[in-house]
Amino acid sequence: MIADVYIELKEGVTDPEGEATKKALRLLGFKKVKSVSSRKVFRIEIDARSKEEAEREIKLMCEKLLVNPVIQNYYIRWVE
Amino acid sequence: MIADVYIELKEGVTDPEGEATKKALRLLGFKKVKSVSSRKVFRIEIDARSKEEAEREIKLMCEKLLVNPVIQNYYIRWVE
Repeated sequence: MIADVYIELKEGVTDPEGEATKKALRLLGFKKVKSVSSRKVFRIEIDARSKEEAEREIKLMCEKLLVNPVIQNYYIRWVE
Repeated sequence: MIADVYIELKEGVTDPEGEATKKALRLLGFKKVKSVSSRKVFRIEIDARSKEEAEREIKLMCEKLLVNPVIQNYYIRWVE
């Protein structure tokens, strides 16, 4: 099974990468850009007997390593 | 208009972040993980008269700043 784990900053948390990218784009002449935010995706391939088991495992991975719950949210989308 | 620009490594390009994440997950006991790859998403809000115009602009942004065409591919998904 393959899942994409999307990790994004919580509302209100500053996004320096998004801000810097927006500034750089505007400096390059892209004046129509109103905002840029960045997020991260981990595509994880996992051996599991069921989607429920895989999802439980992936949630644990997020809690233990991938996500900082103070500043980040995550959600899971199945690729296959 | 809001678009998500997905940036991923081309096939054959090593993904140190994905590799390190996989190793760390396995060290933590997640033995069922077969592979991990990382990708990046920029959510861009843009003022444009049409989707075609916005897409043209965003492609230019990718070529000029966001994407390294030697090692990365990108694709665009509309959020609204």
